Amino acid sequence: MAQPTAIVLLSGGLDSATVLALAQEQGYACRTLAVGYGQRHAVELVAAARVSGALGALEHRVMHVDLAGIGGSALTDARIAVPELASPGIPVTYVPARNTLMLSLALGWAEVSGARDIFIGVNAVDYSGYPDCRPEFIAAFQRLANLATKAGVEGVHFRIHTPLINWSKARIISEGTRLGVNYAQTVSCYQATADLAACGRCDSCRLRREGFLAAQIQDPTRYA
Amino acid sequence: MAQPTAIVLLSGGLDSATVLALAQEQGYACRTLAVGYGQRHAVELVAAARVSGALGALEHRVMHVDLAGIGGSALTDARIAVPELASPGIPVTYVPARNTLMLSLALGWAEVSGARDIFIGVNAVDYSGYPDCRPEFIAAFQRLANLATKAGVEGVHFRIHTPLINWSKARIISEGTRLGVNYAQTVSCYQATADLAACGRCDSCRLRREGFLAAQIQDPTRYA
Repeated sequence: MAQPTAIVLLSGGLDSATVLALAQEQGYACRTLAVGYGQRHAVELVAAARVSGALGALEHRVMHVDLAGIGGSALTDARIAVPELASPGIPVTYVPARNTLMLSLALGWAEVSGARDIFIGVNAVDYSGYPDCRPEFIAAFQRLANLATKAGVEGVHFRIHTPLINWSKARIISEGTRLGVNYAQTVSCYQATADLAACGRCDSCRLRREGFLAAQIQDPTRYA
Repeated sequence: MAQPTAIVLLSGGLDSATVLALAQEQGYACRTLAVGYGQRHAVELVAAARVSGALGALEHRVMHVDLAGIGGSALTDARIAVPELASPGIPVTYVPARNTLMLSLALGWAEVSGARDIFIGVNAVDYSGYPDCRPEFIAAFQRLANLATKAGVEGVHFRIHTPLINWSKARIISEGTRLGVNYAQTVSCYQATADLAACGRCDSCRLRREGFLAAQIQDPTRYA
């Protein structure tokens, strides 16, 4: 039997790099997809390509969609500041419809390339309160995927895999380290510099640093 | 009470122009969204802007997403010919995940602009067999929309309106004509020329011509 293929959404961050290694461990040959959506931290696209190559994906693509044209998020609108302290509720770094769009692009590529499995590194534990990281959102998208597509109508059953959804950051880092992920290649910071140095102060930097501490693994992150 | 606003997806074709007029008749002030997705018939974006202006929408935006990067459709891949005869099953003009992506963009803009109503001109009668034009797809997307968004979590209920879903092409044309839609401004052809003249031979041209005949309304379409 031919090796099954999967589409893995790759952001350039720590979580999705781990997801790629986990999908490969499960036996999938992976095509990786990074999405440029007008994010202020577009250097993450550089990191995504690097991670894909280092882990030996079949193919890496970057697709672009203009979410900056919608606005409404600190990640796509330079006029909204990235917060340095976690705040209650859904934060200003929430990007309207982002995961719906990314999964839609992955679904289109899955259908055309003959993959029926899509991996995404959402996390419901320390996920900062994004609604489109919740299990009920993922279940609804999987249902939609099977109604939206020609492949679905013809009997293919698409599956959305979220291996990290209930994992702590420490567990993610431990598992990825076991699988040989080089986290020095990843960037989590919402406002990393052009050469991928992290600010060390934003919410995302804080979660990453605490993860390495809790996992008792040396943090390879370069701070600006 | 302030007039409610809606997002109306506008393709430049006959159906979505009619949807805009119907949404306005229902009392909505409309923001119109055209999506460039690498379609070979990109002149439809010109038609969409024209229709939006003529019908007095609040605002018109064009967003771009790179579906040509996915391929697999006669509408985005110049190597796949547009068929001139209807064929059984789902046709090669099906674009993987297109309506999912377009609705996602509309949802993002709706959330940011404070609209809770989205209109799309899908049609399940003479819709050529696209899976993402079926009522069950629309219902699944509406469910997803309310799980995917910050607004949904906070109690807003998004609604996806598909006023044409069970209408014949003749009824669409009759209603649009009653509401003053100028169909000479619209383009339905999958391979229209740069100055918006239609081929008269593709599936979409055929459905349009038959609709005007059945409605007993003079067809203003300019053929190449």
